[in-house]
Amino acid sequence: MRLSKYLFPTLKEVPSDAVVISHILMLRAGMIRKLSAGIYNYLPLALKTIKKIENIIREEMNEAGALELLMPAVQPSELWIETGRWGYYGPELLRFKDRKNGDYCLGPTHEEVITHIVRNEISSYKELPKNLYQIQTKFRDEIRPRFGLMRGREFIMKDAYSFDIDVENAKKSYEIMNKAYRRIFDRCGLKYKAVEAGTGAIGGTLSHEFQVLASNGEDEILSCSSCNYAANIEKTECTNPDIETDKKPDEGLPSPEKVETPLKTTIEEVSEYLKIGQDKLIKTLIYTCDKNPIAILLRGDHELAEAKLIALIKCDELVPADEKTILKVTGGPVGFSGPTTLKEDIPIYADYAVANVEDGVVGGNEKDLHIKHIWPGRDITKKIIYADLREALVGESCPRCKKGKYEKYRGIEVGQIFYLGKKYSEKMDAYVLDNNGKKRIIVMGCYGIGVTRTMAASIEQNHDENGIIWPFTIAPYHVIICPVGKDEAVKETAENIYNTLCDKDVEVLLDDRNERPGVMFKDADLIGIPIRVTVGKKGLDQGKIEVKLRREKETKLIHSDEVIDYIEDIITWETTL
Amino acid sequence: MRLSKYLFPTLKEVPSDAVVISHILMLRAGMIRKLSAGIYNYLPLALKTIKKIENIIREEMNEAGALELLMPAVQPSELWIETGRWGYYGPELLRFKDRKNGDYCLGPTHEEVITHIVRNEISSYKELPKNLYQIQTKFRDEIRPRFGLMRGREFIMKDAYSFDIDVENAKKSYEIMNKAYRRIFDRCGLKYKAVEAGTGAIGGTLSHEFQVLASNGEDEILSCSSCNYAANIEKTECTNPDIETDKKPDEGLPSPEKVETPLKTTIEEVSEYLKIGQDKLIKTLIYTCDKNPIAILLRGDHELAEAKLIALIKCDELVPADEKTILKVTGGPVGFSGPTTLKEDIPIYADYAVANVEDGVVGGNEKDLHIKHIWPGRDITKKIIYADLREALVGESCPRCKKGKYEKYRGIEVGQIFYLGKKYSEKMDAYVLDNNGKKRIIVMGCYGIGVTRTMAASIEQNHDENGIIWPFTIAPYHVIICPVGKDEAVKETAENIYNTLCDKDVEVLLDDRNERPGVMFKDADLIGIPIRVTVGKKGLDQGKIEVKLRREKETKLIHSDEVIDYIEDIITWETTL
Repeated sequence: MRLSKYLFPTLKEVPSDAVVISHILMLRAGMIRKLSAGIYNYLPLALKTIKKIENIIREEMNEAGALELLMPAVQPSELWIETGRWGYYGPELLRFKDRKNGDYCLGPTHEEVITHIVRNEISSYKELPKNLYQIQTKFRDEIRPRFGLMRGREFIMKDAYSFDIDVENAKKSYEIMNKAYRRIFDRCGLKYKAVEAGTGAIGGTLSHEFQVLASNGEDEILSCSSCNYAANIEKTECTNPDIETDKKPDEGLPSPEKVETPLKTTIEEVSEYLKIGQDKLIKTLIYTCDKNPIAILLRGDHELAEAKLIALIKCDELVPADEKTILKVTGGPVGFSGPTTLKEDIPIYADYAVANVEDGVVGGNEKDLHIKHIWPGRDITKKIIYADLREALVGESCPRCKKGKYEKYRGIEVGQIFYLGKKYSEKMDAYVLDNNGKKRIIVMGCYGIGVTRTMAASIEQNHDENGIIWPFTIAPYHVIICPVGKDEAVKETAENIYNTLCDKDVEVLLDDRNERPGVMFKDADLIGIPIRVTVGKKGLDQGKIEVKLRREKETKLIHSDEVIDYIEDIITWETTL
Repeated sequence: MRLSKYLFPTLKEVPSDAVVISHILMLRAGMIRKLSAGIYNYLPLALKTIKKIENIIREEMNEAGALELLMPAVQPSELWIETGRWGYYGPELLRFKDRKNGDYCLGPTHEEVITHIVRNEISSYKELPKNLYQIQTKFRDEIRPRFGLMRGREFIMKDAYSFDIDVENAKKSYEIMNKAYRRIFDRCGLKYKAVEAGTGAIGGTLSHEFQVLASNGEDEILSCSSCNYAANIEKTECTNPDIETDKKPDEGLPSPEKVETPLKTTIEEVSEYLKIGQDKLIKTLIYTCDKNPIAILLRGDHELAEAKLIALIKCDELVPADEKTILKVTGGPVGFSGPTTLKEDIPIYADYAVANVEDGVVGGNEKDLHIKHIWPGRDITKKIIYADLREALVGESCPRCKKGKYEKYRGIEVGQIFYLGKKYSEKMDAYVLDNNGKKRIIVMGCYGIGVTRTMAASIEQNHDENGIIWPFTIAPYHVIICPVGKDEAVKETAENIYNTLCDKDVEVLLDDRNERPGVMFKDADLIGIPIRVTVGKKGLDQGKIEVKLRREKETKLIHSDEVIDYIEDIITWETTL
């Protein structure tokens, strides 16, 4: 491709609305342009990289035995009503009516559609296992689209779904994807961690996230300093205390006593006002779980790990309760909820650490009232279900190896694999007949990769102050040729190298724009082409051509007879895994 | 690919809601499944062919110098308001609101977005010409989606847009696309006609449609029996009479005279009731053109060619007027409009043939009233603009070569190229500075190919009673191997051929389902794989393997040592253009 014919409108200035580096560099490199909030045009350079990532994914998915198909972006409401998600899914699900007033949505994910296909087309256990995938444009109506392609509304995803006769086989399908994903991200040249997103201690479903490590990452990951265990912070297992719920309090502990806490509604305020540590407070959160109110008890200095709670109680929709509900179930206003005097008999879940609070403080379910001298085993008479419900902390011991301590990383989630079980197949009655003619509900898994997000994550990880540093495997082009000066021999040599590389199917750019060397080099660095070939008069006079790798500082002078072989060898080396 | 692992749920029965052959065969071959009206899942076999068509398009577009990018499916209303199409575009434009109440649509086409990109990113004449294209899922909310992929709501399209400094260069860009399109459809193995969709006689814009000839085609094409001229019927030029609008009537012609025509509102009824030929009637149609009423006069036996009228008056929205408007401008009810006593002074357009009606009948603009003895030059006193406004008829003389006569074909429009001029660039102020620093509005063209429709059209043209007959270039696989019988040598030979072909990157299916030969052959024929290789014991005993082309009746016995070469030679021959 000749740059004079290309469309890559590079920018010198940093666009004002971009804060993360991938967003800034993609705008500056002329790769993307915003059309609307979270909705981007992919200009030619971006699309080339997108297609490369898609092809790596496609090759590895096919190699893993998955079959590619393509489902529609527009989905009718009926299937979502069957699984209940038409109701549960929040406003991220963009719903609309067609001209005949039918209810539709723009698909953010395709569990319903694929399960519908499989229940219609697959009827025998002989047709299993199946893994069906697509690479497709998805839409999620994010409330706050930001960070360019990192959290957009319209984006490209690979989504795959596996179908098996039983849990054992479903686990095999899961492991095949686990391996394929590692191959995919390895081939994309990313440094990543596959972190557990499942909640082993609580049991239940199995999931891994693939997190590209980057200082700008939205996700927090805790990783053991000693063993392989790593997990998203909201799912990291805690080393939990041995709890004795029937342990009696010290004799010295007074009975519960009301204490006024005027206008003190937060943990910080109550702790300061009562002059006791936050670890002595027991906070009571009221949530609704599929519309039913529940209470959650945590130590004041701990945070709820919602994912753990969801896995424990297996609900579809978990949200903080509104004021009205809180008043109804506790009898008091927001900020003063407590477990001892609840008005309604709702389920109470507590983090293990709560059991060991001695002489604690809880809300009094009245305005400006708390209750002190609480010993949970003595004073909370309602039934409590104890579980690991809090976020783990940096420096905590790893419960797996019991040797290491947790370290924190930031990551960008570019892929997730998930054991679904019968969540969708049961609701949609997707089954096969087994070898005895018996109906067996299909066991499913789902597996996503954010294609456009992977591109952004790669830039977060691979850049310097001058621009992008593409890994060879996903670079839009491998080589950029910069002829320096107006000398005819220079131009001719550059053209010859360009034509020879084109004939050899090397993906090459020729900067034939007649720009100054400074502009050429700046643009070449900005758009991140792995190999820069500089043809200049001085070098040519010695029969030499300058070759520089984007990721390295030094340039090498290569004999002009050898430059083609030299380039081809680098590319072969770098793109073979 | 082993069929035992594949997903291609073939059907024996003809699905009840399918009427055209491509729809029937794609359902029966397990290629597509309906998700909602006009919205389809593309199963693996269909997607393979779609990707092949896309790749042919991509190669030829790139070869023609076009640059691929990707624009969003979801588009904000602002740009459509700029061009006025937010108002003009009918309910085919699926409009919706996002969670923040912003107005958006699902893009049925991308003139607005691409013009927006170009006006922002291209500023100098040096950056022109540019041709930018994408291959993307589009949505048109058809009122009556039907015929499977022929008239769906969600479909895949390639849309390209060219940008030039002036008309002369824009015409060059148009011609480059004209050639590229012929290469694309040739390579897809289609029999097609490139027909004029422009209205040469009236002047104006330039357009060609690429029509795949098929008896089920929705479009009617008239083609000259002698010269190359062919056009969509609604745009085919008529051989028009010499008209003399000031010619005086014969002395014998009485003055206009009212005649009662109780309840006779159609041409047929009036003609029969008054016992005069339909060619003696002058029908008056009231339309609104961008909301302004106009009258159109046609001979009773002719039909309005709306496209010709639109090209003549250059309006954005042309629709038949409603009853209220008709009453207002004519003074009478629907069915009795006439040009001599119109109540309002609206523009009158008449087809040339009307000028030569002698002693005609027109509507009286009153209920149950017509007027006879009309001589247009004498009796229609308001100003009439004469033009070629009617549909041409089969058997009419060709106005181009004046030798041939029109013949009729049916076609499926799979592509259209269009000279847009400044229609969008002017409204959106898309310009470059020329070499004198002067602002020049960009001249545009647009070029579409229906990818999924091309697949359907190919089936309409390439099938027999047993199923699809894919052209090699767009077949999902080139070879299907059918092992007949349980003999071990048969299985082993089939496996060997399969593995050898796989190693040579031949796209091959192995029917390892343990089905009866009848089932295997029926499925192979139905899904239309070009080469069937049958391995049987009888043949093997003579060292022979049976090879049959899907499009031919005969099978050939090939020596087993030669079968791989034989297959490779056929594929090379058939896929090289």
